[in-house]
Amino acid sequence: MLTRLGLVTAVACLAACPALAEQYLVHTQAEYSEIARQVEAGDEIILANGEWRDFDLVITGMGREDAPIVLKAQEPGQVILTGLSSLRLGGEYVTVSGLVFRDGFSPRGEVVSFRVSKHNQASHSRVTQVVIDGFSKPDRYESDYWVGIYGHDNWLDRNFLANKTNKGVTLAVRLDTEESRENDHRIEYNYFGPRAVLGSNGGETLRIGTSHYSMFNSNTVVAYNVFDRTGGEVEIISSKSGGNVFRGNVFRAARGTLTLRHGDNNVVEGNVFLGEGADYTGGIRVINRGQTVRGNYMEGLRGEAFSSALAIMNGVPNSPVNRYVEVEGARIENNTIVDSRRVAFNVGADEERSAAPSSSTFKNNVLSGLEGESFLEVYGDISGIAMAGNQVGKGGVAAALAELNPSLPELVRGENGLLYPADPELSGVGAPRDLRVIGLDEVGPGWYPKPGAATEFGSSGKVIEVEAGQGALAQAVMAAEPGDVLKLAAGEYMVERTLPLTTTLSIIGAGADETVVMFARPSLVELREGGNLRLAGLTIDGARAPDSVGNSVIRTGVYPIQSNLRVELDEIAVRNLDVNKSFSVLTLGKSTLADRVSIKNSAFQNISGTIVSAAAETEDYGQYNVEYLDISNNAFANVGGPIASIYRGGRDESTFGPNVTITGNALTNVGLAPTNGTGGSVNLHGVQIAAIEGNAVSGSAPFRVVHTVGTPKTRIADNTFAATGEFILEELVFDGEHRAVLSGNEFADGGDK
Amino acid sequence: MLTRLGLVTAVACLAACPALAEQYLVHTQAEYSEIARQVEAGDEIILANGEWRDFDLVITGMGREDAPIVLKAQEPGQVILTGLSSLRLGGEYVTVSGLVFRDGFSPRGEVVSFRVSKHNQASHSRVTQVVIDGFSKPDRYESDYWVGIYGHDNWLDRNFLANKTNKGVTLAVRLDTEESRENDHRIEYNYFGPRAVLGSNGGETLRIGTSHYSMFNSNTVVAYNVFDRTGGEVEIISSKSGGNVFRGNVFRAARGTLTLRHGDNNVVEGNVFLGEGADYTGGIRVINRGQTVRGNYMEGLRGEAFSSALAIMNGVPNSPVNRYVEVEGARIENNTIVDSRRVAFNVGADEERSAAPSSSTFKNNVLSGLEGESFLEVYGDISGIAMAGNQVGKGGVAAALAELNPSLPELVRGENGLLYPADPELSGVGAPRDLRVIGLDEVGPGWYPKPGAATEFGSSGKVIEVEAGQGALAQAVMAAEPGDVLKLAAGEYMVERTLPLTTTLSIIGAGADETVVMFARPSLVELREGGNLRLAGLTIDGARAPDSVGNSVIRTGVYPIQSNLRVELDEIAVRNLDVNKSFSVLTLGKSTLADRVSIKNSAFQNISGTIVSAAAETEDYGQYNVEYLDISNNAFANVGGPIASIYRGGRDESTFGPNVTITGNALTNVGLAPTNGTGGSVNLHGVQIAAIEGNAVSGSAPFRVVHTVGTPKTRIADNTFAATGEFILEELVFDGEHRAVLSGNEFADGGDK
Repeated sequence: MLTRLGLVTAVACLAACPALAEQYLVHTQAEYSEIARQVEAGDEIILANGEWRDFDLVITGMGREDAPIVLKAQEPGQVILTGLSSLRLGGEYVTVSGLVFRDGFSPRGEVVSFRVSKHNQASHSRVTQVVIDGFSKPDRYESDYWVGIYGHDNWLDRNFLANKTNKGVTLAVRLDTEESRENDHRIEYNYFGPRAVLGSNGGETLRIGTSHYSMFNSNTVVAYNVFDRTGGEVEIISSKSGGNVFRGNVFRAARGTLTLRHGDNNVVEGNVFLGEGADYTGGIRVINRGQTVRGNYMEGLRGEAFSSALAIMNGVPNSPVNRYVEVEGARIENNTIVDSRRVAFNVGADEERSAAPSSSTFKNNVLSGLEGESFLEVYGDISGIAMAGNQVGKGGVAAALAELNPSLPELVRGENGLLYPADPELSGVGAPRDLRVIGLDEVGPGWYPKPGAATEFGSSGKVIEVEAGQGALAQAVMAAEPGDVLKLAAGEYMVERTLPLTTTLSIIGAGADETVVMFARPSLVELREGGNLRLAGLTIDGARAPDSVGNSVIRTGVYPIQSNLRVELDEIAVRNLDVNKSFSVLTLGKSTLADRVSIKNSAFQNISGTIVSAAAETEDYGQYNVEYLDISNNAFANVGGPIASIYRGGRDESTFGPNVTITGNALTNVGLAPTNGTGGSVNLHGVQIAAIEGNAVSGSAPFRVVHTVGTPKTRIADNTFAATGEFILEELVFDGEHRAVLSGNEFADGGDK
Repeated sequence: MLTRLGLVTAVACLAACPALAEQYLVHTQAEYSEIARQVEAGDEIILANGEWRDFDLVITGMGREDAPIVLKAQEPGQVILTGLSSLRLGGEYVTVSGLVFRDGFSPRGEVVSFRVSKHNQASHSRVTQVVIDGFSKPDRYESDYWVGIYGHDNWLDRNFLANKTNKGVTLAVRLDTEESRENDHRIEYNYFGPRAVLGSNGGETLRIGTSHYSMFNSNTVVAYNVFDRTGGEVEIISSKSGGNVFRGNVFRAARGTLTLRHGDNNVVEGNVFLGEGADYTGGIRVINRGQTVRGNYMEGLRGEAFSSALAIMNGVPNSPVNRYVEVEGARIENNTIVDSRRVAFNVGADEERSAAPSSSTFKNNVLSGLEGESFLEVYGDISGIAMAGNQVGKGGVAAALAELNPSLPELVRGENGLLYPADPELSGVGAPRDLRVIGLDEVGPGWYPKPGAATEFGSSGKVIEVEAGQGALAQAVMAAEPGDVLKLAAGEYMVERTLPLTTTLSIIGAGADETVVMFARPSLVELREGGNLRLAGLTIDGARAPDSVGNSVIRTGVYPIQSNLRVELDEIAVRNLDVNKSFSVLTLGKSTLADRVSIKNSAFQNISGTIVSAAAETEDYGQYNVEYLDISNNAFANVGGPIASIYRGGRDESTFGPNVTITGNALTNVGLAPTNGTGGSVNLHGVQIAAIEGNAVSGSAPFRVVHTVGTPKTRIADNTFAATGEFILEELVFDGEHRAVLSGNEFADGGDK
């Protein structure tokens, strides 16, 4: 035994004196295994600074309140777990701190798990100052949790969890054993950093319980955390159990809401939601019995419906656990909601969800929306909600709330930076004056920097001139750094190899009439991890591309891409993509998601395939390939496929997108190739929001819009059509007429719509 | 200038004495660029031994016949080009030798190109003793050539080209400029090694010309090369030009044929085709005018139709260049064809291809097929072929050839190992007695070993016992070496992480009743590059898999897989794949091809998805995911999807597969889940050969078989059906009744077929 211990440095005392706590500094996984087997209460295992690769780290044992078992980094932040690594805690009074998970992913279902096995769950244990940064599975649709909390009385505090790109809740509190209910866990002062749009269900940041165990109390406290750009899907926090407290958390530019999805008697108080005007930013969604929502502050939120600043839902009478229990006995008081799009009552009211809120109060709230927009909306019976003392400012008010006359006096910012009525007589209305807004410096480990804004096109300030010589453009692309601009001269650039793009890059020509880029491979650009592309002021000519089917000017490749892509085309011309069939402009492949694709002020001519193909996810799992697509003010002539082919199948309602805008384009002879299986010049399947307006279409295939689940909003307006068929509109789930809004469309052959 | 030259070692003489030839030993790419700029006739550039990564190697200049410019390895085989590397030659009298391309791929359209640009093509130049081994693009459907020969009078000899896994001809001779026609290139003593089935068009090993330039003579000599298992698609060699000579080449177990596809007056003589009984092995296919086929030897070939030992095609009257020019003036003499499945005349005869061969001779051939099988077949008018002196042995003879009575005396092996009539009176019949069979040691560089047979399951002889302890199976899989067998004991094995498989591995339990494997992730095994899996004697239980859609016990992952996979399941049980919908057994993803999937003697119960899903290639580019699928003697009960979902779309005819056998199975309640979009209990789309026989089906969805192009052979026979719908049979291209052969099927509800 002693010889084995010789492997490690016993800092305090050798193994021979067991009564005293030990400190072990370990350097290898083998040493760790040896030591971990024998730790006792009060012992400390210290991982040596450096990289620990493929480390299946397990710490378990019986610590005591006054003598926990400690696993920590030699120096906080200097112990890096990479590759296929994970951490599991078992036993009692175990504390882990100072580790960084980076450059890899967990081979298990969790990165950090508060159980070693089903029969050894941790209790009275703590994980603090641990970083999990981008430690995502490479397949974005392979699910895991980053942290799974089991057992009871555990404490997760001051950790950093950011940049999860794969499916699955970032942090899950599990109630699937008896000991893990009424658990009194505390989740405090953590930094939940950016979580990009997932493009499917499973992008929540925090979930407590599941519908299956939602009749149990979890009694988990979630306090003083920051949720910074945690926009994975419609729910930021999904509370699916009772007795939880959400207090003093700050949400910044975070899409979605804190949702009291299942379970009763939760308290949501003193939280601050700052939407910063970002799309789909919401506040709190109330469902179930006995919920308390008080003293919260919302500003700059832009969500509506389920994603409103405040959404009070209708329920299902005698609801099964996995549907919507009616709101009963809710206390919604002293909240401030300003500069926000929507507060909505009886949300989701339909034949099934017919039970209106009852025995509830809605008092002393400050409510102010957006000038000229509907603000306070009511979709059912609100007689079960007692209203008093609310102060209303800007925005439209539903007739049912006519008593709430807009009368709110001036708002002024308090010392905490939040808005309050200037009128001292209103001091008892709205959020508390002393509400504390937790800062970024107060959450997560201080030694790990919080992420800044994403790199924008051209943000490096560096402009690199690239001459037309052989291979010069390829070399420049390889050498580019984030935010760089490559400036092409007038003339012809022949590119003999596909350009793999791994950074945010702009390629700007001297004008579409001046700079011509040709390419000899099936693609000009292959988007890879980290790749974002802006093309402007040039012509792409496909005449030299190989005579093979399925070429694409820009495409994703065979390697997985975890990050969300951006592609912008502005004032370019694209021509002669017709050496073979199905030659497209942009093709987004399986398991990729473009956050934003924008095509503007450009001309496309003689193209055998599709302009934007974002239709690789055909399995109806609710996944899709583009969040925002904007095609505006372009001319399309002789295009075989559709200008946009967007597919979002399945019946899941957890996503906001896709969101498609197609305005002000001219389409001539588009979509009529026999290889266009979709049969449309525009083909949208399952798109959530679509505006197709002001386009002039002639001699083309019809627009095709298929609605799936949810409440898709499609507007097709003010388009003109000549020698083009009627719209093809289909509802796959909704039982009724197609819900697209049609207005001001003119068909030269008659039949305006 | 001198300072720069100081970088390199000028072996013979310094730059100051320009009249004499120089030898430069270079160590870096920068040095190389500097030197390459100034080489003159007689100079030698020597690349230092070692790895050269991402090397865009270009050598050009005006050498002379007596003083070529030489680029060579310091020691042959010790200069390794890796990563994104390629070689281009220009100028005249340039010789390159001794390089190895490995562990990477070309970022261009070619690995080795006999041109620097369109305006600088090489002539009188030579590439010799160069190795290109597995230097394939990671996306199997991204096309390139490994060698592109342009210019004229070039010599490609003693090279090694093996293991190309991506699309595109291995070696292409291009005629797309005037100088590159009548080029007198020589392609000699090269080793063309294994080329696995590509699963789409573009798997040829050698192509000379294209249809577009097929009216020109290429005058290329292809002599004394070995084509070893070059089975990428239906054509091994595609001659698409005139005046070529194919002499003395040896084909070993190579699927497909040497095809005289376009162009006239080619000579095919003294070649040896040894099929070794492998599927689809063929010989020579004759089209066009003035072809000479003499003195060739074929043995052990198993192809038929286009892939016969000898196929003489019908043509299209006044054919366009890209169709089939009629056979006229063919001389087919003194060939020996023995132990081979088929010799066929008027192949492809139909309404379009109505022109029979004319002015042709077929003389002094030795012809012997397979006992009890049809051998000499005739599909049209053979009056234009003068027959004389042919000797016929085994196999059926078409009525039109009744004069060719089987009368061949005994065959004996000559010193060269080939079969000849024992009768000395027949010495002028068949292939020449002195035909030389080129050996593997005579082709390619001597210093690079030829590949052996693929690793079979269990071939290492190592059997590793794995106990049921936590993580033991995962560790054993990670540590396994090719051909190992993991032996599991009785008991339950819980696998908490997906097992990534990168080798050929067998996992054998103590019997399906004894050994149970459960898993906690969406997949038990993820197949990666090099992964082949055999499971036997165990139960797979999905009850502990996560409650998410689209789980699969075995699947390919998000990383590209270049190699062709094999999966065998034998005497296993699979159950409880029903925690969510679409839980499958084996899922083959995009851009993957399983060479062989075999499922035998096994039982499957309560499965919400599909047993074998090989239907990821939905784009109708003619790609598919499984070559051979055999599902025999299994029981399937309560399976939501089909037992096989196979998709091979498009209209391409360049592949032999997929080939599906489904025999002796029992199906109960199969294929009826609403998530089964195909609507069949068996779903075959575009399968080329299918045998569905002796299955007992009850309470299941119908069999669905969709035929696309070509002459698919489907046989559905001797099956029994209860409470199961009629067959769903569709022809997408063929204009007529469905061509499936139906026989002896019994429907309990009546309506036997």
